[in-house]
Amino acid sequence: MTAVRNKLAAGLSREDLHTFYDAYFETLDDGRLNDWLDYFVDDCVYRIIPRENYEAGSGLCTMQADSKGMLFDRVQIVLKTMVFAPRYYRRFYSGLRVVNSNDREFEVRQNVVVVQTLLNKPSEILACGVGHDRLSLDGSRGLKFVERTLVLDSEMISSSFIYPA
Amino acid sequence: MTAVRNKLAAGLSREDLHTFYDAYFETLDDGRLNDWLDYFVDDCVYRIIPRENYEAGSGLCTMQADSKGMLFDRVQIVLKTMVFAPRYYRRFYSGLRVVNSNDREFEVRQNVVVVQTLLNKPSEILACGVGHDRLSLDGSRGLKFVERTLVLDSEMISSSFIYPA
Amino acid sequence: MTAVRNKLAAGLSREDLHTFYDAYFETLDDGRLNDWLDYFVDDCVYRIIPRENYEAGSGLCTMQADSKGMLFDRVQIVLKTMVFAPRYYRRFYSGLRVVNSNDREFEVRQNVVVVQTLLNKPSEILACGVGHDRLSLDGSRGLKFVERTLVLDSEMISSSFIYPA
Repeated sequence: MTAVRNKLAAGLSREDLHTFYDAYFETLDDGRLNDWLDYFVDDCVYRIIPRENYEAGSGLCTMQADSKGMLFDRVQIVLKTMVFAPRYYRRFYSGLRVVNSNDREFEVRQNVVVVQTLLNKPSEILACGVGHDRLSLDGSRGLKFVERTLVLDSEMISSSFIYPA
Repeated sequence: MTAVRNKLAAGLSREDLHTFYDAYFETLDDGRLNDWLDYFVDDCVYRIIPRENYEAGSGLCTMQADSKGMLFDRVQIVLKTMVFAPRYYRRFYSGLRVVNSNDREFEVRQNVVVVQTLLNKPSEILACGVGHDRLSLDGSRGLKFVERTLVLDSEMISSSFIYPA
Repeated sequence: MTAVRNKLAAGLSREDLHTFYDAYFETLDDGRLNDWLDYFVDDCVYRIIPRENYEAGSGLCTMQADSKGMLFDRVQIVLKTMVFAPRYYRRFYSGLRVVNSNDREFEVRQNVVVVQTLLNKPSEILACGVGHDRLSLDGSRGLKFVERTLVLDSEMISSSFIYPA
């Protein structure tokens, strides 16, 4: 019974999912943004949106990319900006759950908190929210994001939060 | 060896436990309090208690319900109160561990941090503590709380924290 | 495929790793520092170091012990200090990942946030960082730390943070 339950679908286990997200967040924590692009399919959607907008059905996003090309452009901007504003981001996630799946895709959600540390300042919560993701599984490529929508509980994210999560 | 260790008792694996708590906290994060009641047996105990009281053996709780009926009453009050104080709660847990078990019950503990976001305010830690739980496993109903005692490290929880975790 | 992937090496599964770290952090959260020593081999290295020093290749640590004996001495000091400064620490970890392994050792990293609660104060983030660990697996003793280096994002940890994580 347990063995069956742990195999979510199409040969994917909860362990595989955690392995994917552990590596995903580590890549971001380390600031390896060019590697981060590899977690997305070419025809991806990536969005950061305040919860109020999300729940009101508004498409007004803090950050939006409708393809891997747009995500690449965003990454170049972030990498330049980081030079002028030294700070660390560290991500913690909890409650990783498959909410839907079929043969090719998985809908996954998870809570995320981003802890920020500015130079000579104590660590503090920068943002808190939930990721609503669609993942595809391809035998050769492994898991990739088809869509990632990060819904943030607060609208009070400083405009400096152009860094992805 | 590994396979044996991962099967905790009575056909329950660590994966099953995580699946249960992931869904439990998601239900609370989403504010689906009536669904939340389904995680408890009829003859349940639910308590939120400051650590100082807990360690001193005092029964003085921030919130206490000695049956699912009392929990239901509490839920109705919370749902009314929420109307006047819009805010978001999001829960993160870590260190889920079975500390004891027999054929019918599991004693489980886990660290919990509740992040609160008020309207037009940054996200912040509302409460931090540890859950000391007893779970029962019934083939047809799955896992349910027989008892959940959430011990909070701080006594300084604002009186508005009547929302469960 | 999944079964193979979940068995990391030398009979160690991701579940075994989580079980180890869950117990490790719980021991610290409970303040059982003498039990905490049991998680290390005799010839261990334990370090807490600010990220700036770590990335600059500096050996300047907030705390350093080059053997279990030195760790024991440190524990005695901490236990005495705690009497005068009542507070609670609670640890949350995320992103536990094996980054390297051979037949005898595992290199593991994980994000850690320590939440502090002072008497009559709200809970707050004390420190945030990443653990870079080397673990050895011995059939009879189980997992032990050969090395644990906790790299903290902030240098602004109050001097009272002599408590390990």
